[in-house]
Amino acid sequence: MADEFDIIHRYFAPLTRGNEAALDLTDDAAVVAQTTGFEHVVTTDAIVSGVHFLIDESPENIAARLCASNLSDLAAMGAAPVGFTLAAAWPKGTEERFIAAFADGLGRWVDEYDFPLLGGDTVTTPGPMMFSLTAIGTVEAGKALKRTGAQPGDTVYVSGTIGDGGLGLMAAKGELSGLSDAHRDFLAGRFRCPTPRIAAGRALIGRATACIDVSDGLVQDLGHICEVSAVSMRIDAAAVPLSDAARAALDADPALLETVLAGGDDYELAFTAHQTPPPGDVPLTAIGEVISGTGGVSVVDTSGNPVKIAHGGYNHFAAQPPKDAPKA
Amino acid sequence: MADEFDIIHRYFAPLTRGNEAALDLTDDAAVVAQTTGFEHVVTTDAIVSGVHFLIDESPENIAARLCASNLSDLAAMGAAPVGFTLAAAWPKGTEERFIAAFADGLGRWVDEYDFPLLGGDTVTTPGPMMFSLTAIGTVEAGKALKRTGAQPGDTVYVSGTIGDGGLGLMAAKGELSGLSDAHRDFLAGRFRCPTPRIAAGRALIGRATACIDVSDGLVQDLGHICEVSAVSMRIDAAAVPLSDAARAALDADPALLETVLAGGDDYELAFTAHQTPPPGDVPLTAIGEVISGTGGVSVVDTSGNPVKIAHGGYNHFAAQPPKDAPKA
Repeated sequence: MADEFDIIHRYFAPLTRGNEAALDLTDDAAVVAQTTGFEHVVTTDAIVSGVHFLIDESPENIAARLCASNLSDLAAMGAAPVGFTLAAAWPKGTEERFIAAFADGLGRWVDEYDFPLLGGDTVTTPGPMMFSLTAIGTVEAGKALKRTGAQPGDTVYVSGTIGDGGLGLMAAKGELSGLSDAHRDFLAGRFRCPTPRIAAGRALIGRATACIDVSDGLVQDLGHICEVSAVSMRIDAAAVPLSDAARAALDADPALLETVLAGGDDYELAFTAHQTPPPGDVPLTAIGEVISGTGGVSVVDTSGNPVKIAHGGYNHFAAQPPKDAPKA
Repeated sequence: MADEFDIIHRYFAPLTRGNEAALDLTDDAAVVAQTTGFEHVVTTDAIVSGVHFLIDESPENIAARLCASNLSDLAAMGAAPVGFTLAAAWPKGTEERFIAAFADGLGRWVDEYDFPLLGGDTVTTPGPMMFSLTAIGTVEAGKALKRTGAQPGDTVYVSGTIGDGGLGLMAAKGELSGLSDAHRDFLAGRFRCPTPRIAAGRALIGRATACIDVSDGLVQDLGHICEVSAVSMRIDAAAVPLSDAARAALDADPALLETVLAGGDDYELAFTAHQTPPPGDVPLTAIGEVISGTGGVSVVDTSGNPVKIAHGGYNHFAAQPPKDAPKA
């Protein structure tokens, strides 16, 4: 394997795309300009092989998951991407072509989201492959979307469709039966390569009273808003927007509703607002209302009866990675 | 083990010390103010158990190594600390008291360097313990110390004493004989709990022409300056400042000079300047001069003869962790 400096020079330095802040990755740190009237939004998400992605996942899809989850956090704050730093831990003997393909995968996100690499660290590990990405964004000062502003009477909205991430993980593991190949591929693709809602987040500045991205699961993530906003929510299960593929999966097995509502990895935005937000590049759908009280999130069916969610969302820390790591 | 949210709430949220940017760790990201006329300095360093720290290292010393290496990168750019994000990967079954002690160790750095926790991620791993810290600092716009400005005729300086890190690793592993307990403890302590030179770095703004921190090893790190500044250096081995303990180690075994010059982990500043820098909180010592050419760093003894450095510094990527991870 080439050494650390060769790897950085060959595969990672080009991902700066010449951005001045990166100093060509030849210095101790990146230098990012500051402008009064704006704030930097900073988020760090880590992923571990066999825990957050399948152990035989492709390098391009690993790069996608890493970028999407972090960009989704920027989106949830209404921030525009500035760039990122990356800590990569490669197991001994990782093939150089794997690293090259991973860097190539990152490059697509760098270009699509104007999200250059600014710095980082490359280490070897005797354990599983692991990446930690720190995304930096910028937002108008005092305007960042937060989780704290939801008020009784607000409407609860989501972007795009919900449940594709959780169902997509099942599809990727071969656990979804009774679906067409096209639907299975669609769902697995939504799990493997999510779309962070940067433009939708930017458009919600000054409009959403609270916002979060759906990463742990819709019910759990809305619960985070309820907790810090000191409100409750009533969600109409039938109003939750589904893709055709997710609808087909639910038709085949209605018990999958729980996976839709609590499965996570959708990377859509869930937010509250007083007024209907303007249409943008992705559909926004009203799914419920903010109510007073401390009862958290209740989900009701079309008859108004409660829908039980046994599994309140994915908790990476409590969840133990399976002994036989998942296979795609 | 407590779940992810409990761990964050109990041990990590207090490390924000109420800093507004951290939003109490209840949101998707931190929000850091920007001020025109300044730049944010951003650096990410990762450490893996058995590779970058001894597998039975104490949680307090792991926290020290993590903070010191990242703060040292800020120091090398002349930046003042703003705060940090942390990705922590805990092996399954990590005891809660270990996490508590680690957080307690971090807290001392938070307070000493006004360096609050702003955000991050907590995951489990089937592999070794790993941490990735992203440090954010701030520096006057256009004034960050870089590696690019060294010019022939400049003097080469270092802060503090050199070689304690490399010798300290040997001491920690029980590989240094013929030393007093006090000297051994001093060196091991310098390895385990280095002192980042934040104030010295700030004082070099506008004075140093190039600067780097000594993490890979003095010769290799000066080589980085030579490479990007397109200069060479002539270093006088006898001028390199040594602690009493390092002097005693060299007296006992002169071959350890190579460990002093190339051993790494000192976290002192090495820099070039036209004029003698003013005295500060740590001694600054002239050790050589910048010369023209592309010959890199040559080290000479008191007779002017070259000192051979077989091992040009520690390369974490090429270096393979030992099968039996090091024991303290």
